[in-house]
Amino acid sequence: MSEELGLTIKKNEDFGKWYLEIIQKAEIMDIRYGVKGFPVYMPTAMTVIKQIENMLEKELEKTDHKPVSFPVVIPEKYMTKEEKHIKGFCDEVFWVTHAGKKKLKERICLRPTSETAMYPLYSLWIRSHLHLPMKLYQTVSVYRYESKMTKPLMRGREFRWIEAHTAHKTYKDAEKQVKEDMTIFENVVVDKLALPFMLFKRPDWDRFAGADVSYAYDCILPDGKILQIGTTHNLGENFAKPFSIEYMDQNGKKKYVNQTSFGPGIARIFGAIISVHGDNKGMILPPEVAPTQIVIVPIYAKKTKEFKTDILKKAAEVYGKLSKNYRVYLDDRERFTPGYKFHDWELKGVPLRIEIGPNDIKNKNLVLVRRDTLEKIIIKEGELETKVVEAFSDTFYELQKRAQKLLTIEDVKNYSELKKKLKNGGIYRIEFCGNEKCADKIKEDTGAEIRGTLFGKEEKVKKKKCDICGKKASIISYVGKAY
Amino acid sequence: MSEELGLTIKKNEDFGKWYLEIIQKAEIMDIRYGVKGFPVYMPTAMTVIKQIENMLEKELEKTDHKPVSFPVVIPEKYMTKEEKHIKGFCDEVFWVTHAGKKKLKERICLRPTSETAMYPLYSLWIRSHLHLPMKLYQTVSVYRYESKMTKPLMRGREFRWIEAHTAHKTYKDAEKQVKEDMTIFENVVVDKLALPFMLFKRPDWDRFAGADVSYAYDCILPDGKILQIGTTHNLGENFAKPFSIEYMDQNGKKKYVNQTSFGPGIARIFGAIISVHGDNKGMILPPEVAPTQIVIVPIYAKKTKEFKTDILKKAAEVYGKLSKNYRVYLDDRERFTPGYKFHDWELKGVPLRIEIGPNDIKNKNLVLVRRDTLEKIIIKEGELETKVVEAFSDTFYELQKRAQKLLTIEDVKNYSELKKKLKNGGIYRIEFCGNEKCADKIKEDTGAEIRGTLFGKEEKVKKKKCDICGKKASIISYVGKAY
Repeated sequence: MSEELGLTIKKNEDFGKWYLEIIQKAEIMDIRYGVKGFPVYMPTAMTVIKQIENMLEKELEKTDHKPVSFPVVIPEKYMTKEEKHIKGFCDEVFWVTHAGKKKLKERICLRPTSETAMYPLYSLWIRSHLHLPMKLYQTVSVYRYESKMTKPLMRGREFRWIEAHTAHKTYKDAEKQVKEDMTIFENVVVDKLALPFMLFKRPDWDRFAGADVSYAYDCILPDGKILQIGTTHNLGENFAKPFSIEYMDQNGKKKYVNQTSFGPGIARIFGAIISVHGDNKGMILPPEVAPTQIVIVPIYAKKTKEFKTDILKKAAEVYGKLSKNYRVYLDDRERFTPGYKFHDWELKGVPLRIEIGPNDIKNKNLVLVRRDTLEKIIIKEGELETKVVEAFSDTFYELQKRAQKLLTIEDVKNYSELKKKLKNGGIYRIEFCGNEKCADKIKEDTGAEIRGTLFGKEEKVKKKKCDICGKKASIISYVGKAY
Repeated sequence: MSEELGLTIKKNEDFGKWYLEIIQKAEIMDIRYGVKGFPVYMPTAMTVIKQIENMLEKELEKTDHKPVSFPVVIPEKYMTKEEKHIKGFCDEVFWVTHAGKKKLKERICLRPTSETAMYPLYSLWIRSHLHLPMKLYQTVSVYRYESKMTKPLMRGREFRWIEAHTAHKTYKDAEKQVKEDMTIFENVVVDKLALPFMLFKRPDWDRFAGADVSYAYDCILPDGKILQIGTTHNLGENFAKPFSIEYMDQNGKKKYVNQTSFGPGIARIFGAIISVHGDNKGMILPPEVAPTQIVIVPIYAKKTKEFKTDILKKAAEVYGKLSKNYRVYLDDRERFTPGYKFHDWELKGVPLRIEIGPNDIKNKNLVLVRRDTLEKIIIKEGELETKVVEAFSDTFYELQKRAQKLLTIEDVKNYSELKKKLKNGGIYRIEFCGNEKCADKIKEDTGAEIRGTLFGKEEKVKKKKCDICGKKASIISYVGKAY
């Protein structure tokens, strides 16, 4: 794979190009595959992605979700059962029409999402209130013929996600599921990946096709644009009716279930990690997901090879100690200089480097270098394990602190200030009449969107006047440009 | 989900029907999905399958394989590049021809296997001998329009597998990879799943489309028929040439790489677990892969509720102790009798049951019941942890011993004996001229196939006379009926 090192583009000068350069040079995705919008996930990407998947799957299992796997293909008769759903997806699905040389009797599409694949079986499985709640999830790729420009990890025609589909007795139970999903998301995305997010109830005109209410997890990237990294939809009885998903309640009465679907976008979460935490030297990976958490670099003069044996012995010792609990790589490759190695591992975002040189042998020291600050910490050999724990914890909080700074929400005085401020990106809080026409106006004037109202927190209007049209405002909404 | 319990068909009376009944009643797959050959993997199946995948992935990573993910769709121009490959797969691939309402400019197929998806990128990634060996794997589903009868987990149009694709400097290095693959397979399939297998070099007429040599992992099911649960193909330079995968060697000379592809069939391995280990009461899962390893069933008379509090307290204690190291379920559901629960968990293959009743409270005992023997072991409370370890180990060896019995290989005196014996299934060792005509004759007369010669063990002919045609025999081959 590529051996040219170092980023040439500064993050704050051209974020978009910086992102694409990091994707290429840190060997995340290869976009040269022969079908447009279908990139290849390279080893670093897949290793991180599998970690994120595992973390989310663990949280799902803790909350009694069970894994399943439904076919990648959905027959047209299933796909078209819920009217709004097929209307929303009809331009986006890939159709399989032939097998070998034969034409299929009924065409089948690649799943763009799995509501219509799963719910015919839900209607067979769910009979009684004793079967509820039913909480199933699958970790799969979905396929959408995107017409917008694709961008590695953020918008593609094939993307990895987890989709959890739940069925409940009541609408209220379904609504409670949104809270559980938010906690799952927080436990991983905030507490392990150091990515703050906001959960918005999307406006009515921006719902998932077939949903009663859509909630979406938004985070903000360094260019001030918003990236949606997950959604939970309260589907109400919208799918239960056409798919006949009914249960017998305690009194022997037949009722429709209420459903939700939750979709954390794994690829997008990884895209956000790269974007939010990275710097001009490359990625900075939160310790929990880094494929290599610690790299050990032995340093000795190439010619004199002074202390070489001692240094390599010490390096092996340190490796032995740490590899029990961490993913460690001892980089003793002879053909590269230490300087080259530093750059290489900085580019790839390894959160902690341990350098061992002649002085460290003399003084029984080790040098730790944190990726986030590039700060050198000289420690005594005996302190190794505690200092590593400390460094990881400090790195995590530093990343979280930096990320939190991006997510500052501002109020605006009026529409003209909003328009002016939106030029630099960001999220703004406005008083809003709730009318789609005002949303269209913002979109037209600035390219920004109404992201919705904050979930789980009632915010009261003060001026009671829509910041756009001046008419009566009833809600606080958030506005920003989005990917 | 289904609440009717108990198998109605005996394994030794009708293995095929027994298998289908277990698939349905133990809630493994649901075959009622709306596209033929595309079943749904239910929670128990997915939990076991994920465990098997994890085990194999760990072994692959130990041997320096890295995870990747290539698109599910392969453009026609890639798919048709290696002549024999497309010839082998042209009747089996699903074609995507439309996206939304648009017809695609070039049609794309769903991966039936990923050689032609991956190797165009290998040709970009591999430049120098320093990049070799390159060992990548992905855990995905593949799609083949099977014309044979489908059977849950064993033959479907969508099936889960891992595919590892390696590139090496020499043919010999590629051949060494076969040995590594066999070790990976043994470490999981034999040592954790208690399934013995034989690795055969398939005869020339039974190679993977495009391979130089195909090796296949065969295991034998209780009906005496063989199930192939994995393959390794030495592709030689067959793909390297059309895909231009070349490297510069130490002397600056351009050479083609030599490649292998290794495909453990995860779904089939699970199918073999069910088939080989199961009995008339249901599945028997090897402890390492059981979704629930231990079930605790409190027993008290429904009316008197004698000792109920004590029993439930004890059950919670036992749960607390064991759940740190094992996947444990405390079945305190009030609406079912202990007898119902026993049947339910026996059907689902939970390897160990712990019963706690009034007598156990009085005597400070616990009752362990192993799923494989259904033997009751009364133990003292203090011995719990050591007895669980012992029970799991004993279960594993018992399963292994039983499975090994199925894999008895017999020699035959002559062709008429072979024909007679093949009526009852089984694997037979024959002296063989190596001619495809003889293989055709066996197939025609008996339905059985030449499975090939044993890998890694040179077996010498004694009679030196082909058991079929009587001409000169040069090799020892194995014959059996296969799925």
